Amino acid sequence: MYKVKVYVTLRESVLDPQGTAVKNSLHSLNYSEVADVRIGKYMELTIGETDRDVETIVNEICDRLLANPVIEDYRYEIEECVAQ
Amino acid sequence: MYKVKVYVTLRESVLDPQGTAVKNSLHSLNYSEVADVRIGKYMELTIGETDRDVETIVNEICDRLLANPVIEDYRYEIEECVAQ
Repeated sequence: MYKVKVYVTLRESVLDPQGTAVKNSLHSLNYSEVADVRIGKYMELTIGETDRDVETIVNEICDRLLANPVIEDYRYEIEECVAQ
Repeated sequence: MYKVKVYVTLRESVLDPQGTAVKNSLHSLNYSEVADVRIGKYMELTIGETDRDVETIVNEICDRLLANPVIEDYRYEIEECVAQ
């Protein structure tokens, strides 16, 4: 069994209005030291035993469903764990 | 300057309908080896120079704005970086 952590972030060049809104809220709450906020997605997948290569599967999944490769980057960590 | 990475996840006991929807989509795409999906948020904060303790600030920000402590857990990594 594998635990996969996927991080999807907007590319640097893409505006992040959600992050800007959070930054402005933080400034209203008097956290003026916060200079920038970028918001992304974090996903944890549990992948069962498979004959295929897990890295290939995760790359395909990210490209096809989890991230929009036009405006987002993704990275992931794969951790093998023993089924209990 | 500090780069802070914040990960917000739903607590284990809380249902994650968004994750279930993604899992079902993956099954429709023939990734039946995916046993579970949990979806969270990932945020990158840039915090400028400050007299206060950065860890205290990040804890306060997470409790007050970024996470809902009733149903979500958060963890973070603080990285000090030299301003360019």
